[in-house]
Amino acid sequence: MTLTLDRQTSTQQALNQRVFNFSPGPAVLPLPVLQEIQRDLLALPGAGSSVLEISHRSPAFDAILEEAEANLRELLAIPADYRVLFLQGGASLQFSMVPINLLRGQDLPASYILTGSWGRKAAVEARREGRVHVAWDGKADNFVRVPDDGELDLPPASAYVYYTSNETIQGVQFRRPPAAGAAPLVCDASSDFLSGPVDVSGHGLLYACAQKNAGPAGLTVVIVSDQVLERCGNDVHSMLSYRLQAEKGSRLNTPNVFGVYVFLLITRWLRDEVGGLEAAAERAAAKSGLIYDVLDRDGGEFFVSHAARACRSRMNVTFRLRRADLEDAFVAGAAELDLVSIKGHRSVGGFRVSAYNAMPVEGVERLRDYMLDFRASH
Amino acid sequence: MTLTLDRQTSTQQALNQRVFNFSPGPAVLPLPVLQEIQRDLLALPGAGSSVLEISHRSPAFDAILEEAEANLRELLAIPADYRVLFLQGGASLQFSMVPINLLRGQDLPASYILTGSWGRKAAVEARREGRVHVAWDGKADNFVRVPDDGELDLPPASAYVYYTSNETIQGVQFRRPPAAGAAPLVCDASSDFLSGPVDVSGHGLLYACAQKNAGPAGLTVVIVSDQVLERCGNDVHSMLSYRLQAEKGSRLNTPNVFGVYVFLLITRWLRDEVGGLEAAAERAAAKSGLIYDVLDRDGGEFFVSHAARACRSRMNVTFRLRRADLEDAFVAGAAELDLVSIKGHRSVGGFRVSAYNAMPVEGVERLRDYMLDFRASH
Repeated sequence: MTLTLDRQTSTQQALNQRVFNFSPGPAVLPLPVLQEIQRDLLALPGAGSSVLEISHRSPAFDAILEEAEANLRELLAIPADYRVLFLQGGASLQFSMVPINLLRGQDLPASYILTGSWGRKAAVEARREGRVHVAWDGKADNFVRVPDDGELDLPPASAYVYYTSNETIQGVQFRRPPAAGAAPLVCDASSDFLSGPVDVSGHGLLYACAQKNAGPAGLTVVIVSDQVLERCGNDVHSMLSYRLQAEKGSRLNTPNVFGVYVFLLITRWLRDEVGGLEAAAERAAAKSGLIYDVLDRDGGEFFVSHAARACRSRMNVTFRLRRADLEDAFVAGAAELDLVSIKGHRSVGGFRVSAYNAMPVEGVERLRDYMLDFRASH
Repeated sequence: MTLTLDRQTSTQQALNQRVFNFSPGPAVLPLPVLQEIQRDLLALPGAGSSVLEISHRSPAFDAILEEAEANLRELLAIPADYRVLFLQGGASLQFSMVPINLLRGQDLPASYILTGSWGRKAAVEARREGRVHVAWDGKADNFVRVPDDGELDLPPASAYVYYTSNETIQGVQFRRPPAAGAAPLVCDASSDFLSGPVDVSGHGLLYACAQKNAGPAGLTVVIVSDQVLERCGNDVHSMLSYRLQAEKGSRLNTPNVFGVYVFLLITRWLRDEVGGLEAAAERAAAKSGLIYDVLDRDGGEFFVSHAARACRSRMNVTFRLRRADLEDAFVAGAAELDLVSIKGHRSVGGFRVSAYNAMPVEGVERLRDYMLDFRASH
């Protein structure tokens, strides 16, 4: 008994240090996943080495990669004619890889739907490779919403239609993908990936960096249809070629072995503990709803919501205080309650509460209560 | 006492599972580093979160990045007018980034010294961006050596001169950098990085993937002079631009936070436990010498050394058996002694023993003894 107690005590000390981390990414990870990583860090069972030391061509990593892909296919119901790639470089490298593969040398323009900071950055890189047509731009109204399909100005044909399913900085999210017509629909799903079901078959290519809902920084997941792979150009550097990466099964060179391992553990957690992506979506709606409820009841008197109601992100809740002079006090008071990383991005200001899958509801409840207390006392 | 014993027992069980891992990369890491990662995995002291969860713009990561760079600067005596970049994508992405930044749009050719598989791959990517001049090619004699300076066929001017300081697959290594003349010297140091001192000031750019001596897969370290940064072109995608990555201090987007953290721990271990890079070089010479000594004493009767004596790698020892029919038995017998991942790359065959910094001398001694026993019994 005492022996077991020691491990618990030691773990308890570490657990006591843990705060509620509302960082937009890298972000909170599921505690059971962290504990499994910790337990097996010196020697992955059966591998004889740490997961940080195993070859990317070892049987141990073969099994990790295979199960990671299988779990993702099951969670997202990915059709058989789509490939799953585990790459590096974050979403930002995808801003370039998408047009390098799909726009370079094309006569058709690529159509971009701009609903926030990340979409804009993506369009900047695309312009290096060809014509970019802006199908909708939310900048004029400060990126508070996403467009209806009827508002999209799409040309008769596009190399692809690009959108950002959830804009992390502004906190606006598409409830369903935009209507792209016949062109392949390309989605940057970085900040709402695995937070709910997605109709993969409606997309030509969908990608996400891992450091929100899917793992540590340094891993990027790309889901791409065989049809889109066939359209990819040949005049592409090897590491930037979707087709070559797909042909080599994500092992054109050494992938982020540890990142794929953590991703695998997270997919297991999503399936076995969360209960799949429908359940994840319900949790996300409930957690973000706790904060939106405060904003709605307040009615803009004390708290000012950034995103329009119909487009509110269930991952990143953005708001500010009517009295900007209270912002520092709001952050300081939150920190005293172990509620951290709630400051908004400098381009939007105010606050951003990121409540990804791994954020316990207790953390959001504590923040909700704090918001109510803070308002009452000011 | 019993409480402490429990932790030791638990750790001992994991340690007992660990084999001597001679993988060429990802490769063995220092055990004290793994233990520190494990200890702090649930909460990095002072950060309130796991290192896998902290923001790349948090004070905790500021400190990690700053110390990682400072330690590397100290270990390699990096001059002040050089930048250190922590990137992603492995050496293979550098095969492309080097010519994208330094050859694109140039009239001058880039000169490549080809001493093995990795240099050849690099030259393939460079040809996408401009003229490649092969200054030396070891393919005709099966990449068993590196050239003398007098053998290099260098044009009057080059955009840069490129070489691979250690060819992991063939096991050939430069003892000192080749004479590049006035052109910037570019080095792929992936598999001997941090195994000994390097004259950084003699290079324009030097890079290494981490998964040999410097960390887990998914991190690439680039050391580049301000002078070379000034030569870099402007027509480059943001993520692929050395200049932009340098301007943003490796945080143009989210870097591999965990990879930089492990790299930091390894630099501390190199400084405090190994005693710096001179000491690391001595250890590498001694460890590889244990195997080369077997090969030399055997004189090619049973074991056949691949690399010419003067060019032998101190990281990757390559050899084969005179009797190829004994290869499977040699691997199987080694595995019984927990000596694993010694098979050579399919392009060279035979065996490759990678004894990076973190490989204990005991592992190499055990392998040496096994080689002698195996020879004696066959």
